[in-house]
Amino acid sequence: MSLTGVIPPVCTPLTPDYEVDTASLVRLVDHLLTGGVNALFVLGSSSEVAYLTDAQRRTVLDTVVGHVAGQVPVLAGVIDMTTPRVLQHARVAVEAGASGLVATAPFYTRTHPDEIRTHFRTIAERGGLPLYAYDLPIAVHTKLSAPMLLELAAEGALAGVKDSSGDDGGLREVILGREAPFSVLTGSEVTVDSALWMGADGVVPGLGNVDPHGYVELYRCAARGDWQAARTEQERLVRLFEIVKVGGGRMGGSSSGLGAFKAALHLRGIIDCPITALPQTPLNDDEVGQIGKHLATAGLL
Amino acid sequence: MSLTGVIPPVCTPLTPDYEVDTASLVRLVDHLLTGGVNALFVLGSSSEVAYLTDAQRRTVLDTVVGHVAGQVPVLAGVIDMTTPRVLQHARVAVEAGASGLVATAPFYTRTHPDEIRTHFRTIAERGGLPLYAYDLPIAVHTKLSAPMLLELAAEGALAGVKDSSGDDGGLREVILGREAPFSVLTGSEVTVDSALWMGADGVVPGLGNVDPHGYVELYRCAARGDWQAARTEQERLVRLFEIVKVGGGRMGGSSSGLGAFKAALHLRGIIDCPITALPQTPLNDDEVGQIGKHLATAGLL
Amino acid sequence: MSLTGVIPPVCTPLTPDYEVDTASLVRLVDHLLTGGVNALFVLGSSSEVAYLTDAQRRTVLDTVVGHVAGQVPVLAGVIDMTTPRVLQHARVAVEAGASGLVATAPFYTRTHPDEIRTHFRTIAERGGLPLYAYDLPIAVHTKLSAPMLLELAAEGALAGVKDSSGDDGGLREVILGREAPFSVLTGSEVTVDSALWMGADGVVPGLGNVDPHGYVELYRCAARGDWQAARTEQERLVRLFEIVKVGGGRMGGSSSGLGAFKAALHLRGIIDCPITALPQTPLNDDEVGQIGKHLATAGLL
Amino acid sequence: MSLTGVIPPVCTPLTPDYEVDTASLVRLVDHLLTGGVNALFVLGSSSEVAYLTDAQRRTVLDTVVGHVAGQVPVLAGVIDMTTPRVLQHARVAVEAGASGLVATAPFYTRTHPDEIRTHFRTIAERGGLPLYAYDLPIAVHTKLSAPMLLELAAEGALAGVKDSSGDDGGLREVILGREAPFSVLTGSEVTVDSALWMGADGVVPGLGNVDPHGYVELYRCAARGDWQAARTEQERLVRLFEIVKVGGGRMGGSSSGLGAFKAALHLRGIIDCPITALPQTPLNDDEVGQIGKHLATAGLL
Repeated sequence: MSLTGVIPPVCTPLTPDYEVDTASLVRLVDHLLTGGVNALFVLGSSSEVAYLTDAQRRTVLDTVVGHVAGQVPVLAGVIDMTTPRVLQHARVAVEAGASGLVATAPFYTRTHPDEIRTHFRTIAERGGLPLYAYDLPIAVHTKLSAPMLLELAAEGALAGVKDSSGDDGGLREVILGREAPFSVLTGSEVTVDSALWMGADGVVPGLGNVDPHGYVELYRCAARGDWQAARTEQERLVRLFEIVKVGGGRMGGSSSGLGAFKAALHLRGIIDCPITALPQTPLNDDEVGQIGKHLATAGLL
Repeated sequence: MSLTGVIPPVCTPLTPDYEVDTASLVRLVDHLLTGGVNALFVLGSSSEVAYLTDAQRRTVLDTVVGHVAGQVPVLAGVIDMTTPRVLQHARVAVEAGASGLVATAPFYTRTHPDEIRTHFRTIAERGGLPLYAYDLPIAVHTKLSAPMLLELAAEGALAGVKDSSGDDGGLREVILGREAPFSVLTGSEVTVDSALWMGADGVVPGLGNVDPHGYVELYRCAARGDWQAARTEQERLVRLFEIVKVGGGRMGGSSSGLGAFKAALHLRGIIDCPITALPQTPLNDDEVGQIGKHLATAGLL
Repeated sequence: MSLTGVIPPVCTPLTPDYEVDTASLVRLVDHLLTGGVNALFVLGSSSEVAYLTDAQRRTVLDTVVGHVAGQVPVLAGVIDMTTPRVLQHARVAVEAGASGLVATAPFYTRTHPDEIRTHFRTIAERGGLPLYAYDLPIAVHTKLSAPMLLELAAEGALAGVKDSSGDDGGLREVILGREAPFSVLTGSEVTVDSALWMGADGVVPGLGNVDPHGYVELYRCAARGDWQAARTEQERLVRLFEIVKVGGGRMGGSSSGLGAFKAALHLRGIIDCPITALPQTPLNDDEVGQIGKHLATAGLL
Repeated sequence: MSLTGVIPPVCTPLTPDYEVDTASLVRLVDHLLTGGVNALFVLGSSSEVAYLTDAQRRTVLDTVVGHVAGQVPVLAGVIDMTTPRVLQHARVAVEAGASGLVATAPFYTRTHPDEIRTHFRTIAERGGLPLYAYDLPIAVHTKLSAPMLLELAAEGALAGVKDSSGDDGGLREVILGREAPFSVLTGSEVTVDSALWMGADGVVPGLGNVDPHGYVELYRCAARGDWQAARTEQERLVRLFEIVKVGGGRMGGSSSGLGAFKAALHLRGIIDCPITALPQTPLNDDEVGQIGKHLATAGLL
């Protein structure tokens, strides 16, 4: 499996009492598949994976893998602090029928680069599925260097990387340096055309929950070499991405972004309830109103 | 329960195949109780909590709480990324019979101070046991401010704090500012006499695994006002604490410290195997030899 | 003056006893002008501005402005900790005949965003020349946000930005958000084609010292819409940029990069001595040899 | 010269048009000498050194050294980005008759530990005066490790350290590890009794500008072994130190602290004008009022 195209990190709709709303989740999956996405990524940061209990993670996996039923690959985040805990999540993902695993470097602990290599190698050996590295220094407080990624790619430990570091110079170094097949996926919402231009294989945009058609259109334009049209679509999405700032200042960056995606999905009628998990501060009515205006401007309401 | 005295964060001995070595764990607990400690803290950073699966965490809790059988309080770390996951661990700790919970601020996510307050308040309400905040910015990448701790103390959400931030000015601000009973525990190995001098109630020293008698002696000297003797004992322990640097450079700071504690416990005959969990780089023979010399100098071999 | 095109940050050649080598500096300027660059930026990070005394800074300014004699604009870095010190450097730059000023946010001090605004506004009012913000969080430990840059642009305080943050999403936000003329210049060596594609006006590449022809070619290809050729040239330069890593590990990132540029300029016969200022560790013979190989591969030897 | 006792980092009073107010500076020096301090430190962070032009730095040095006229040693901060710039400031300090130099590690640049060693060694060799390392990671973004300080102490490059890192564990490691005479000075305002208890030689408290008598009393109590009285005095000063938080949130931490010291000196009638240098946000009337209340509580109005 060499992953390409648009692979949204699927939001996890919750009920008002903070349980996984599987009916809304299924509607969201349908919304994404109808939008033409190439694969799905569940249990990533945009899925509020950090806030879900293990049982809820399992529910998400089973619901999505079951509903997708092989139409597209489903990647499973196995986000946890260290190797043994990640391997537990990997076991569940295998059982649920996921197509690949997405793991960060260890966090909470202070980990040497040699130990990060051991971490990925061990998951690759024992995880039972193709492994994608998730480079998210804002959460993990470690940047995966291009040389390390290329080394792990060359030895077959990694099948690809989701690069959410915002460092497109490093992304390019990986693209130009890879020799074996190695999927380079940008986690950026706003530099997708340029990442594809550099040779990236795909995109994992949180905003793709709200507007999958936009990212699919962007990708298709790029794929057929119509870069002007890709840029125009990207610029529209850059403007839409302003929604993630609406709650800024009053809450953490995670809450502001996740709250915005869910508010937009709720306004668009895709999920029943826009609630985010504890301890996130919810958006207030005024903020939701602003998000509605952004959606209207983008032609999504 | 107002916690005071020496409360070591209990290491988690592992078998060569990385399972919890309950026999060694029981011996370690006996070693600590014999040393005269006032309480135990399991599933903290020194317990390699970040590396233990949920089943292993449960084994540790059951083993220690069962063996201690009420002789001293047993605090349980409920270390995880966010409130819902922490609450799961709290449920297990309650079932196992722990005496209190120790939780950090959220990590991995970017969390606003208001959300950190919500986090602790929610755990305090629903956790079912007295809650201690664990201030460990090197792992969590957030510092708990003195005003926030005092606010949560005043409203009864927090029963105390384990301060492993190294910021003894902040520690003092909490000590001087508290009004209700609120246990201030330093997580430092090397400024215990001065923290007690400032009015701290106790100490949670990782090195206390290796030399509980030393920390108990230090605490008792301080308690009876013999500060000169307390300082002399502290200075001996400062020198012993050099063991945590032996592996430095070749591995992460977590591995170097945890590896040293376990190597020392193995050399002292208390645990069967000094192995640390994956992906930590193990100490080599030369490094273990250096640790042995430190132990000999400290009169512990 | 609306700045566009290739604006290399001019290295500062030193004599073996660490004085400014004005003869080499003049040769370097000729090398750059011959290469077709559109403007010069002296006293930036690549100029070792942090290591030059005020007298040396003055020598650099006088030498370059005098030699260029109006053929192209010369921007002057006014890098210092706070507003009053920056204003002193601005005075010198005005006297020397520079065309514009380049200033970072305050550093060393802990500065609130409101104070950063005051900083730029004050320099704009009193500096006497068009002001460019220099966004270099790796040195300054503050990121200039897109909204702040746009606000300062809208009120006319800033004429442009040199963005060396590596955050091309933020760069794009500024490009799409600007209304008045506002030069957006990327400080990246490796994402120039994509920054131009997004609408950036120019590039300030340290590597442009070594290969100005390459960056000029890249820019011209982009300007005439031949993006494929621009990308090919960019990819060649990405490979050449590997020279900055040769000294990595043994020295700081600043020294490794600056040492590589100077070694390359020396190997190419443009400057007399590759020495870098104290306390930087110099490259050794083996490392210089590796840089030579990179130059040969790039067709520059 | 082995420095001991209370060595306040002297604030730099400014006139309303931001020039050095030498008359107020002289009054401040007299206030400090009358308070019984053992030495003075000019051109440190509390002196707003980062905001003073070189001419202003010179004025401060000449004014203070001239007025003190040898009654106590005067240390001169030589704060700048790298070795050559620091050496320029050292030359001025020697000419002005300072007793010692205080230098940080390089900042703005990314500097390897080996280069930091070269930095201090070069200043020690060429600076012409005893050299004190200034450990201020909040400004410099590098922590000076205990082993590095001890190495530089052992070879005679450093005469001492001003430790403003807040890491009293590291402070103690230096105290216990030193062999040659080496002055260990804490830069903390709030852990002075405990630092002295550990064996520190003196204290460099910014708050000592406002209440030199308090710190001198604290030091004298400690020196004669009356630790209870030292602690009581320290606790009073901890409460007074709350003034540095009054402006918090609305301005940077530097401005809030420096503004509070100057407002207090103005309220106490020692300096004519409480203004702080640009771009710092000034305290407003309400905030100044709160500082007045703190002073009254502390018996200083």
